[in-house]
Amino acid sequence: VKEKVLGILKENSARYVSGEHISEALGVSRAAIWKHIKDLKKEGYVIIASSKKGYSLVSVPDVLNSYEIIYNLKTGIIGSNIIYREEIDSTNNYAKKIASEGCKDGTVVVAECQTAGRGRLGRMWDSARNKGIYMSIVLRPEVAPEDVQIITIAASIAVAEAIRDITGMEAAIKWPNDIILDGKKVCGILTEMSSEMEKVNFLVVGIGLNVNHSREDFPEELANTATSLRIYAEQNSTGTAPAELDFRLNRSSLVKAVLTEMENVYCMVNNGNTDEVVRQWKEYSVTLGKEVLITSKSAEYRGFAKDITKDGRLIVDCSDGVTREVMSGEVKVRGLLGYT
Amino acid sequence: VKEKVLGILKENSARYVSGEHISEALGVSRAAIWKHIKDLKKEGYVIIASSKKGYSLVSVPDVLNSYEIIYNLKTGIIGSNIIYREEIDSTNNYAKKIASEGCKDGTVVVAECQTAGRGRLGRMWDSARNKGIYMSIVLRPEVAPEDVQIITIAASIAVAEAIRDITGMEAAIKWPNDIILDGKKVCGILTEMSSEMEKVNFLVVGIGLNVNHSREDFPEELANTATSLRIYAEQNSTGTAPAELDFRLNRSSLVKAVLTEMENVYCMVNNGNTDEVVRQWKEYSVTLGKEVLITSKSAEYRGFAKDITKDGRLIVDCSDGVTREVMSGEVKVRGLLGYT
Repeated sequence: VKEKVLGILKENSARYVSGEHISEALGVSRAAIWKHIKDLKKEGYVIIASSKKGYSLVSVPDVLNSYEIIYNLKTGIIGSNIIYREEIDSTNNYAKKIASEGCKDGTVVVAECQTAGRGRLGRMWDSARNKGIYMSIVLRPEVAPEDVQIITIAASIAVAEAIRDITGMEAAIKWPNDIILDGKKVCGILTEMSSEMEKVNFLVVGIGLNVNHSREDFPEELANTATSLRIYAEQNSTGTAPAELDFRLNRSSLVKAVLTEMENVYCMVNNGNTDEVVRQWKEYSVTLGKEVLITSKSAEYRGFAKDITKDGRLIVDCSDGVTREVMSGEVKVRGLLGYT
Repeated sequence: VKEKVLGILKENSARYVSGEHISEALGVSRAAIWKHIKDLKKEGYVIIASSKKGYSLVSVPDVLNSYEIIYNLKTGIIGSNIIYREEIDSTNNYAKKIASEGCKDGTVVVAECQTAGRGRLGRMWDSARNKGIYMSIVLRPEVAPEDVQIITIAASIAVAEAIRDITGMEAAIKWPNDIILDGKKVCGILTEMSSEMEKVNFLVVGIGLNVNHSREDFPEELANTATSLRIYAEQNSTGTAPAELDFRLNRSSLVKAVLTEMENVYCMVNNGNTDEVVRQWKEYSVTLGKEVLITSKSAEYRGFAKDITKDGRLIVDCSDGVTREVMSGEVKVRGLLGYT
């Protein structure tokens, strides 16, 4: 009911709606309506009231709760079920848990804060409260286990595209799935899979996007390699900004954009249109044509990133004359993330 | 303590041990010893008592509890932790759960009965109570996600080898991981994986081995395709067997043999000695050199199975002149499992 009250207020944003109208529309008592309004105010919604005219929603807080995300979301699969937690150990862990219990394709887990956020290869992911977007999407794609790399590529396209949709900033992709802004990392994607040898049970695509972090929010060791949309906006604003402007972005709009773009690329993958996914990936790439350093368990190679294969492997002309297809391991790109 | 009481009785099998001796050895009261003996009797252990001489273990029931399996087990990794349940939905499900919570490499889950036993591709696995071996092994191997097929191959070798060790029966392997006896399936292996794109979190190798099933224990539709060690023994016994002989095998000895052989092949994999794994697999193969029918989502091919690649793909010379490497999908072998 709270969501429905909020829905009516939003439809009438900055206009008064009478308690009576809401009460009739939802078939709930006016006392119940008043209680929900009180709850919404506690969550940070600014709602003013007039005994004659009713309630008016004046401003929406920057929260990631499920009704802010669902409102006006037009996807069919991605986000058809949204689970919100103020705090969680790791959205990927929770998503894997509910996926193994059978949750549906496209279920999204989103949190304001992760206490044990993880990046690739067991690394920590800094998940400052209320600053970033920490979410995981459960997918049950029609691909074989050996072809799942395409999903990670698809997810990176969705994030880059969403950033461009909402902010116009030219986000780019470092192979396979880091989102880069100004040579620094603004978003990491951690894809995990549960599978049989021949069949994917489910994938969990974890997205950690730095949105409203200021420089001080990052630990010192990340100063040269990490950025946020807010930092980028501040650095690239021209002219004199009004003093009260703090360059914060609305995170739920960004989440909606990511889910919408994710739906597009996910449908492409499920329709077998992976060529188009790879084509789009190449457009966003800041890896192809660049000098790269590849570090694997057994060796280190330098070379030029030439292309990617249709299943997502990076093709590198190495300085020892051998052309290698890289599936995993560390790839550094000269000029990015502090590698000079 | 119950396990330790049993241990002492086993060391002195068919000889009397005084309650006083056990009590002193374990530092427990004689009343406590008596209680454990009572419990063991309830579980089916035949223990006789004499007020003068003490207790004597006369016979051990065919149960799969963890102390029967651990007793005299000499592995270092596989089975270092054994979890036994009388009934479980699926040993693979439980193993995946504890693996995601961090259980150690080589943990084994074993049950007398599965209420929702699963085979490959979501199929049911018939798990009649007390008849078969239903167990799952959690592995954390040093292999990349794209190379995990070798683990399934290794597991099938371990099972075939264990059957030969204990019974001398010439178990063979149908690609990739069915264990065949007399042209029928005696064991299925379901490997599931949790991974990042670049790193295996864990594997769960589920083993369903038909041991003491009689013909009547199988549903009619499996009559031509499934068998058990007991059925095979009965069919192949020569001369007149005593009337009371029912050809049952001791399942915990078989479990021990599987765990021991699994430890061998698992170490080979972790030491990078996959060539030897593939070599052994070929020795057990009933697929190579045979006519096969390959069914994938998109097409059907007939051909001859020529070889397997070092990462476990089946190489098939197809009747349309093309040589294909098969990673997954259905492979039927002429002459096996009712395919004529």
